[in-house]
Amino acid sequence: MVERVAIVGAGPSGLAALRAFETARRAGADVPEVVCFEKQANWGGLWNYTWRTGLDEFGEPVHGSMYRYLWSNGPKECLEFADYGFEEHFGRPIPSYPPRAVLHDYIAGRVEKSGVKAYVRFSTPVRHVSFDEKTQTFQVTAKDLVADRHVTESFDVVIVANGHFSVPNVPAFPGIDKFPGRVLHAHDFRSADEFAGKNVLLVGSSYSAEDIGVQCYKYGARSITFSYRTRPMGFHWPDGFEEKPLLQKLSGRTATFKDGSTKEVDAIVLCTGYQHSFPFLPDELRLKTANRLYPLGLYKGIFWQDNPKLIYIGMQDQYYTFNMFDAQAWYARDVVLGRIALPSAEEQAADIAVWRAREEALENPFQQIDFQTDYVRDLLAATDYPHLDVDRVAELFKEWEHHKQEGILTYRDRSYPSTLTGTLAPVHHTPWIKALDDSLEAFLGVRQAAE
Amino acid sequence: MVERVAIVGAGPSGLAALRAFETARRAGADVPEVVCFEKQANWGGLWNYTWRTGLDEFGEPVHGSMYRYLWSNGPKECLEFADYGFEEHFGRPIPSYPPRAVLHDYIAGRVEKSGVKAYVRFSTPVRHVSFDEKTQTFQVTAKDLVADRHVTESFDVVIVANGHFSVPNVPAFPGIDKFPGRVLHAHDFRSADEFAGKNVLLVGSSYSAEDIGVQCYKYGARSITFSYRTRPMGFHWPDGFEEKPLLQKLSGRTATFKDGSTKEVDAIVLCTGYQHSFPFLPDELRLKTANRLYPLGLYKGIFWQDNPKLIYIGMQDQYYTFNMFDAQAWYARDVVLGRIALPSAEEQAADIAVWRAREEALENPFQQIDFQTDYVRDLLAATDYPHLDVDRVAELFKEWEHHKQEGILTYRDRSYPSTLTGTLAPVHHTPWIKALDDSLEAFLGVRQAAE
Ligand SMILES: Cc1cc2nc3c(=O)[nH]c(=O)nc-3n(C[C@H](O)[C@H](O)[C@H](O)COP(=O)(O)OP(=O)(O)OC[C@H]3O[C@@H](n4cnc5c(N)ncnc54)[C@H](O)[C@@H]3O)c2cc1C
Ligand SMILES: Cc1cc2nc3c(=O)[nH]c(=O)nc-3n(C[C@H](O)[C@H](O)[C@H](O)COP(=O)(O)OP(=O)(O)OC[C@H]3O[C@@H](n4cnc5c(N)ncnc54)[C@H](O)[C@@H]3O)c2cc1C
Ligand SMILES: NC(=O)c1ccc[n+]([C@@H]2O[C@H](COP(=O)([O-])OP(=O)(O)OC[C@H]3O[C@@H](n4cnc5c(N)ncnc54)[C@H](OP(=O)(O)O)[C@@H]3O)[C@@H](O)[C@H]2O)c1
Ligand SMILES: NC(=O)c1ccc[n+]([C@@H]2O[C@H](COP(=O)([O-])OP(=O)(O)OC[C@H]3O[C@@H](n4cnc5c(N)ncnc54)[C@H](OP(=O)(O)O)[C@@H]3O)[C@@H](O)[C@H]2O)c1
Repeated sequence: MVERVAIVGAGPSGLAALRAFETARRAGADVPEVVCFEKQANWGGLWNYTWRTGLDEFGEPVHGSMYRYLWSNGPKECLEFADYGFEEHFGRPIPSYPPRAVLHDYIAGRVEKSGVKAYVRFSTPVRHVSFDEKTQTFQVTAKDLVADRHVTESFDVVIVANGHFSVPNVPAFPGIDKFPGRVLHAHDFRSADEFAGKNVLLVGSSYSAEDIGVQCYKYGARSITFSYRTRPMGFHWPDGFEEKPLLQKLSGRTATFKDGSTKEVDAIVLCTGYQHSFPFLPDELRLKTANRLYPLGLYKGIFWQDNPKLIYIGMQDQYYTFNMFDAQAWYARDVVLGRIALPSAEEQAADIAVWRAREEALENPFQQIDFQTDYVRDLLAATDYPHLDVDRVAELFKEWEHHKQEGILTYRDRSYPSTLTGTLAPVHHTPWIKALDDSLEAFLGVRQAAE
Repeated sequence: MVERVAIVGAGPSGLAALRAFETARRAGADVPEVVCFEKQANWGGLWNYTWRTGLDEFGEPVHGSMYRYLWSNGPKECLEFADYGFEEHFGRPIPSYPPRAVLHDYIAGRVEKSGVKAYVRFSTPVRHVSFDEKTQTFQVTAKDLVADRHVTESFDVVIVANGHFSVPNVPAFPGIDKFPGRVLHAHDFRSADEFAGKNVLLVGSSYSAEDIGVQCYKYGARSITFSYRTRPMGFHWPDGFEEKPLLQKLSGRTATFKDGSTKEVDAIVLCTGYQHSFPFLPDELRLKTANRLYPLGLYKGIFWQDNPKLIYIGMQDQYYTFNMFDAQAWYARDVVLGRIALPSAEEQAADIAVWRAREEALENPFQQIDFQTDYVRDLLAATDYPHLDVDRVAELFKEWEHHKQEGILTYRDRSYPSTLTGTLAPVHHTPWIKALDDSLEAFLGVRQAAE
């Protein structure tokens, strides 16, 4: 019998796990005691904005990678929780691309209503986890940052939900140590205002590069230069934007690229992705993977093959986010409750091999969307999570890809229907490129947008 | 018999310990095996410059707090090793205030010549230390970052020398989360060029505020505003500098101070000091102290009272640096080798109480210098560390204080005599305020200073 479950992290993934157990408990099931350890003073994970960078007030690495003026980069209709829609939360339909504060409000609203706050120990990072073969339990050591004291407790199951977009991957380039301006990773980017009037170089060609580049443009940067390693993003960039092959070196302010061309730049933002990082896990329990759709070592993308009492949520690269974490959490919960039995180690390995082979053959974003849709569908089929029309979600993702191609500065002005209610989202009161105030109040129209 | 000693950190303090044991070994003593764990890929601690901020390429907190264009802020004659002078290292006398690279060269030169590199495991942070009462040994777990693997080994003695100017103390101020420019702690300050043309606000009134302010001025900042909590620095600031009482709030770019005055600023550097941080130590072995001259819990400022096999080096606030670390390291070594016996717990406590009472009565920098001089003298008297004329060092520190009062932009143009050789340092080829190239080559005159 599983008596105690530890959850590491109260971001969307950890909160999905909390919600899953609580939903079962309220439906009358006999559920284990759940303790959720959260490093930050508030829940919501990355969606909990902080102005801090580097180390926080307790000397802990700052988790937050989000910045001021961050808006959802996908339609909210694609991430909507099936058990708690946007209309239910806000009392009315809202536009499709909300700013960060609005999504934080939505994430927190669901769990506040479930009354699960009492299970969360805030300002308490997990420091160390070990597994005792004899007792078949985990020893979890966490630090109470406020009391400045460590506590070790025993758990039958550990759910790792600490996210994987927090610890930056920071490559070096010749001459970067002498660059006479600011050099930072996207993880430390906070306020686009700082780059007004500047020539900004962004290394990387994925979501962070794209959005931080567009942000800087929106708030007054003089020029935006992207530098790609594998391939350019190829959007219809407005004047002042430029895509270059990989940065080779810096001499003073001059950046030289792989095609031999050069550019004078004032600041460099390394949008070079993140590392999966589990400093609290011993080698034998630690997932090692790049950011991809089907990491190895996890059955159903969830259960640590060598010890399925160790559960990972949210470790995949993400088209789907909140509702995929829910699908994983409901599945994990049902395994813990004994409602779903795990197959033999051989069957698990074979299942992983099939998914992975399919993942490796994927050739474009549309195939990737279909892949992750099938993954989520597979999980949902096994649990009582409310109906989610994943085929409709996949269609919306594909429309979104087209809309981005049509206009990288205008796609956030589009509207999509909720897959839960069918309601088409209203158009926002201000086109995104002119919406300089990203507060919840401005977005919901509670007060005038301050522009 | 002590068979194995672990040293945490290969900065000046850890290297002092390595050098102390090696010196005894070369003199024929039977010394324990020494393993020095160093998080960085190179030795020299803070003096090992990095352009990185926040987290490094392995996702570890960046240790470095030093910046480009950093010069010694005290005369090199005050920190000279008694067993390895500057003239011995550079083959000739050099000016009194060298830039960072020159001091790194000096620190590294001594230990390179001792041949102790083989004892250092680079890129290997210590993660966890525990003490086993039964075997009376420490279990030390470290991570080999390159191999991405943990190793645990047993040691009889652990020397903690990880420095205490690396983990920033970062207070918050109302409105700082919405400030439309860069906010950083001194720990993340790297290049003054970034602040050219800007109105810079520095919070704090100690060495970091003073020097970063002066740096920004030297490299073209428009204005420098200091904000103090306790008292202003009171130097003869040039035009463009201003000292204000404590920052109360920010609204947009407007900073409001305790006296009600305001100032428009473009960037904020929090020069608010550092935290002692030992994330690898359990509560019962962990020093908890503010940055002061006589932390409690350490006999002779070195031995952990509750378990003197745990040794701390360099944990005091510092007038003395390199040669004080040597004095501590030689003393610690002699205790480990059984050459010095520690008194009873009661006597240790009484000794600490006397020093601490004296420390608490100190009223000004001159008394503080005398206090730390007496502390170093006391340690030196017990070991065979080569003669160091601490009274002369104390005099030099006091002259330095006067020279700073006379000219905060000119004190680094002064020369002092070596306490080892008596040679008066030559005057540098360029006044400090015009010396924009801080490389070793420029300083030593190997090539023209690029100005
Ligand atoms: C810049 C950026 C923008 C994004 N924008 C979008 C978007 O527009 N739409 C979208 O759907 N997704 C977006 N994402 C993706 C994002 O990953 C997910 O939305 C979601 O936040 C992932 O949830 P999570 O719980 O897995 O991880 P996180 O949100 O990272 O939460 C992990 C939690 O674990 C805690 N934690 C970490 N270590 C420990 C420890 N040792 N002990 C205890 N607690 C710990 C952290 O403090 C944090 O609260 C964005 C990501 C980034 C980086
Ligand atoms: C900005 C700045 C400027 C300074 N300027 C001067 C100056 O001009 N003159 C002067 O005399 N002093 C100066 N100092 C003071 C400085 O503290 C000392 O000179 C000296 O560097 C202290 O040596 P240390 O070995 O105690 O600590 P550090 O130099 O901090 O070295 C500690 C070492 O421990 C390593 N480490 C940390 N954690 C771990 C771990 N878990 N496992 C393994 N290794 C670890 C670090 O990587 C580092 O190499 C300055 C300090 C700062 C912050
Ligand atoms: N809401 C928003 O607006 C918003 C904004 C930012 C981020 N996000 C989210 O944040 C998450 C992370 O996105 P991300 O863009 O930071 O990471 P990512 O998607 O993992 O992309 C990493 C990028 O870094 C490049 N890269 C890695 N190492 C490199 C090197 N050594 N040299 C050059 N380039 C290198 C990669 O190039 P290759 O292609 O060559 O490998 C890739 O372009 C995503 O979930 C995204 O949706 C959302
Ligand atoms: N070589 C160089 O040029 C150079 C340059 C920089 C630093 N250093 C060295 O680096 C070390 C650290 O110096 P440091 O100046 O960073 O630290 P420090 O000497 O410990 O001083 C900390 C400062 O922060 C202030 N402070 C702390 N908390 C505050 C708060 N909440 N609000 C406002 N002010 C606050 C303190 O003010 P109170 O007085 O009110 O407590 C003090 O002025 C020293 O050894 C120094 O020599 C050398």
